Amino acid sequence: MGSASYIDISARKWEQLNSLIPSEWRLQDRYIPSAMRLSPFDSVYKLDCFDEGDTGTLLGVPRACGILSTKEIEITEKWDIQGLLHEIAERRLSSENVALAFCKRAAIAQQLTRCLTEPLFTSALEQARQLDHHLQKTGRLYGPLHGLPVTVKDTFDIKGVDSSVGITALAFKSAGQDAALVQLLRSLGAIIIAKTNVPQTMAFLDSVNHMFGRTLNPLNRLLTPGGSSGGEGVAVAMRASMIGFGTDVGGSIRIPAMCNGIYGFKPSVGRIPYGGTTSGQPNGKLRVALKPVAGPIGRSIQDIDTVMRELVPRAEFFGHDCIPALWPSLSAPKKTLRIGILGSDGLVNPVPVISHLLKEVSGILARSKEYDIEIVNISPPAVMKKCMITGARLMDVDGAGPLLDLLAQTEEPLMPYLQGRTVRRSPTSIDKLYALCAERDQIEIEMRKDLWSWPLSTAYASESSGNPLDAIICPIAAHPVPRHDTYGNLSYTTTFVLLDYPTGTIPVRNLTEADLKLDYSDEYKPLSKWDEQNRKFWKADRKVYLNTPLSVQVVVPRLHDHKLCQVMDTVDTAFKIHYQGSNKAML
Amino acid sequence: MGSASYIDISARKWEQLNSLIPSEWRLQDRYIPSAMRLSPFDSVYKLDCFDEGDTGTLLGVPRACGILSTKEIEITEKWDIQGLLHEIAERRLSSENVALAFCKRAAIAQQLTRCLTEPLFTSALEQARQLDHHLQKTGRLYGPLHGLPVTVKDTFDIKGVDSSVGITALAFKSAGQDAALVQLLRSLGAIIIAKTNVPQTMAFLDSVNHMFGRTLNPLNRLLTPGGSSGGEGVAVAMRASMIGFGTDVGGSIRIPAMCNGIYGFKPSVGRIPYGGTTSGQPNGKLRVALKPVAGPIGRSIQDIDTVMRELVPRAEFFGHDCIPALWPSLSAPKKTLRIGILGSDGLVNPVPVISHLLKEVSGILARSKEYDIEIVNISPPAVMKKCMITGARLMDVDGAGPLLDLLAQTEEPLMPYLQGRTVRRSPTSIDKLYALCAERDQIEIEMRKDLWSWPLSTAYASESSGNPLDAIICPIAAHPVPRHDTYGNLSYTTTFVLLDYPTGTIPVRNLTEADLKLDYSDEYKPLSKWDEQNRKFWKADRKVYLNTPLSVQVVVPRLHDHKLCQVMDTVDTAFKIHYQGSNKAML
Repeated sequence: MGSASYIDISARKWEQLNSLIPSEWRLQDRYIPSAMRLSPFDSVYKLDCFDEGDTGTLLGVPRACGILSTKEIEITEKWDIQGLLHEIAERRLSSENVALAFCKRAAIAQQLTRCLTEPLFTSALEQARQLDHHLQKTGRLYGPLHGLPVTVKDTFDIKGVDSSVGITALAFKSAGQDAALVQLLRSLGAIIIAKTNVPQTMAFLDSVNHMFGRTLNPLNRLLTPGGSSGGEGVAVAMRASMIGFGTDVGGSIRIPAMCNGIYGFKPSVGRIPYGGTTSGQPNGKLRVALKPVAGPIGRSIQDIDTVMRELVPRAEFFGHDCIPALWPSLSAPKKTLRIGILGSDGLVNPVPVISHLLKEVSGILARSKEYDIEIVNISPPAVMKKCMITGARLMDVDGAGPLLDLLAQTEEPLMPYLQGRTVRRSPTSIDKLYALCAERDQIEIEMRKDLWSWPLSTAYASESSGNPLDAIICPIAAHPVPRHDTYGNLSYTTTFVLLDYPTGTIPVRNLTEADLKLDYSDEYKPLSKWDEQNRKFWKADRKVYLNTPLSVQVVVPRLHDHKLCQVMDTVDTAFKIHYQGSNKAML
Repeated sequence: MGSASYIDISARKWEQLNSLIPSEWRLQDRYIPSAMRLSPFDSVYKLDCFDEGDTGTLLGVPRACGILSTKEIEITEKWDIQGLLHEIAERRLSSENVALAFCKRAAIAQQLTRCLTEPLFTSALEQARQLDHHLQKTGRLYGPLHGLPVTVKDTFDIKGVDSSVGITALAFKSAGQDAALVQLLRSLGAIIIAKTNVPQTMAFLDSVNHMFGRTLNPLNRLLTPGGSSGGEGVAVAMRASMIGFGTDVGGSIRIPAMCNGIYGFKPSVGRIPYGGTTSGQPNGKLRVALKPVAGPIGRSIQDIDTVMRELVPRAEFFGHDCIPALWPSLSAPKKTLRIGILGSDGLVNPVPVISHLLKEVSGILARSKEYDIEIVNISPPAVMKKCMITGARLMDVDGAGPLLDLLAQTEEPLMPYLQGRTVRRSPTSIDKLYALCAERDQIEIEMRKDLWSWPLSTAYASESSGNPLDAIICPIAAHPVPRHDTYGNLSYTTTFVLLDYPTGTIPVRNLTEADLKLDYSDEYKPLSKWDEQNRKFWKADRKVYLNTPLSVQVVVPRLHDHKLCQVMDTVDTAFKIHYQGSNKAML
């Protein structure tokens, strides 16, 4: 197998994937977008095969295509997580019927977008039958997530299943045991429906590789679905599962959430087990460099809260990388908040529509009648512009050698986006690693001081004055959802991995014709080379963004994950109240 | 100054220290132990100057020596922390009088043991007067530790004061700002009385260097006071302060607590700010290698709990390395416990008296009438014997080069204990560092499984069954308090730094004549070369241990620091109930 070429392995892997989709779940040709007529291999390299139908949403296809029964449409579309779990608990729905409906829907999503890597329909249905049997026999639920259909990024190991993460050298080498998160989810009664697609090497922001091809954005085939948890973002948007789990080290949860108009939650390190994942990186690397985190991508804050409430307090029992935590019930949104609006990180200014969006949301929040929200416009701390570079250097301490060696095993070429970007360099020396870590310490200290005013004047005083800001709202990216293989600078997402701050994506509204008219002022001066490059996203061809989702990022101090959920809930509710009155274009 | 020799710098530093002790606080000659007649420099190299009086306790000298008034004896001896804070709050004692009493006592302790590096008497008295003024003017305490006299290890930076940590190249280079813990303590109203002595390079377990000489054990001058927070252990035992703060990466809080018959508490990383310390190591190193932690050394669990309750919930506001936490009141000891007794770590078996002690305490706990304690004798997990080596390799990733370069600046030789042990090696490569980190992951996973049975069969089940063991009790060291410069293997202490488990030292009772009769069985087979070496501590000359303190170590899972405090409280109370009835030899 070591001597097989990447082309052979890719073909066999695609064949394996297809063999796991029953013929009765095959879409009629007329529902299949033209961009799906490319082979997976061709979809990597050929991006110019779209027709007009490829710019509209595919979210309605599962309902229309005739594969799902009326009941299955109801199962997959009517409920949020609490509602669905309640139906199962009350025995109005069986776990098997629920799992079957979501398996079908995952199969449909795959045929529309190439979002899957490993369909797990057989084991999912088997587990569902066992859950039904358990409930029937004992009269008790197996766990608090009894029967919940979930999807997980390809990186999470499942015993007997590949974790090839888009690298052919890792294919057909099934995992020996379940990832800690998989163990935890299953111990609670959740059912894993499928694993989802990722970029080759997971180091960029489109989800494309030789084996599973290019994942498409169901909202618009011209645009990226995001990455590295891009298949996951698409699966959740398409309702292939009730919630998904991705990982994030440079934005890989938050960016696909943004690209697919849904919610992404990047916790701090230690909240959700990360152990037992495959990344194509050497064992132990992630402990030396930046640590990625696992976290949920969902269709609402409530859904994210429902799973976090069950996972976080048990995480330490399953993940050796997790720490003790409470997750109190999110009974009501927080009524009084002080929120900082950070319009720029000082390295890359967002394009006009993103700047406009931030002003718009700060106005909505400030004028909210339901909540008492104080808005403070803040400037980027001076040190903030160092975060992306220090983060990138820490991610790259081994100079990409081990990863390139892995690709060389099957003579697999780098994806187009990575060519010229992923190059072999000398590994970092211990001395330089020390210097990077010292720089990181200094950045952490200065960001705390400038962003959160920590330490407060005295700890004792803090009992009355509290934390000056509850949260920050800033862009997720300095541009809207971009075309394939063009994603820009990651400063707004990498920064908060370096700092280990919990952050999340909230979709706000879709981009309008009016937004397209926004432009740079004449006297605009670029902040950096990245800033200069970022302007291209608005200068040329911006009509493609019409009707695509616009999102913001919410940020809280390190390990205040529960507070992030509270703040996101409040902010999201305020947005909904506003737009449901004034803007019907909302997703 | 860079060209000055280590001998000149040492002499000037000692002179500076002495100049800060007022002449009216000078002990009469007859109180000074013969071991203190050596110059600091000679005390490093000459250990054979003791007379008979040097084996008895010095704890009574401050009371007898005539320097303290009756009131000052009461202030420094009558109260625990809560009691003293209450007297100050009720204005029955002024902060100035309290600070003065402890400054005097610290000066006395210094003349008996060389436990200090930087007396801060002038600034302490000035701060005390400000606190008194604040209370008088506002009618309110400055903070919850208003007026509490504390000492800190030399490693904690204080603006305008040296952090020379036993290395002459670092002397006369005062710190530019306060360590985060110093800021936090002062913000709560605590007063820092002095900084305390450490080993040169802080990398061994006696507290001796050219500048401040050899710290002596007040219980017995023939024996080590421990290290690296050895000056701190002595200062707290001598009541030079109400509580002290040390740091621990191989046992440096727990070992001096053991050597001085008091309590030491090593938290998990993130509970007490460590930032702003000087270690003589390159900036950033500690983030790559094992992370040391700061923690308290005290005279009771209650004292430790009193400060932890104020520090831990505020730690994240001061330390960029700290995480959010609660510290509920330790209202009553935990009544029902399941405790594992770990008699050996599989690498080094303790000498007979330590094995005997563990059996004795397990019997006391099992038979406790006040508590319902289940005792389980456990075997060392197979992977446990790897912990010390992996820990030591992580501590030494730079091959000691930067430290030896620092010593070379003043041509300072290594302390006798370090000669042949601290040698320049090639720095670890990134590849090898990855391998060490991967090994650490595996050790963490296996220790969780074998020691705590995590993950439990299902998380859901864990709601009823809970954690099988609440805590482990094991030795602190495989030998009693040893002679100077002979400290043995660190496996029992380093292991729990590698694992980041909170652990603490509880003094149990003093070693008796009966203990001296215990011996190895004839068929004893050594477990390792370290085990073979450890037997020397019992084979030769063991009479020196008579009346020295015997301690145990209590261990809980990572970041369960509050639980450690609870369990230590219960266990300690059970010991006190037992020995105060049956053994008057208790300290």
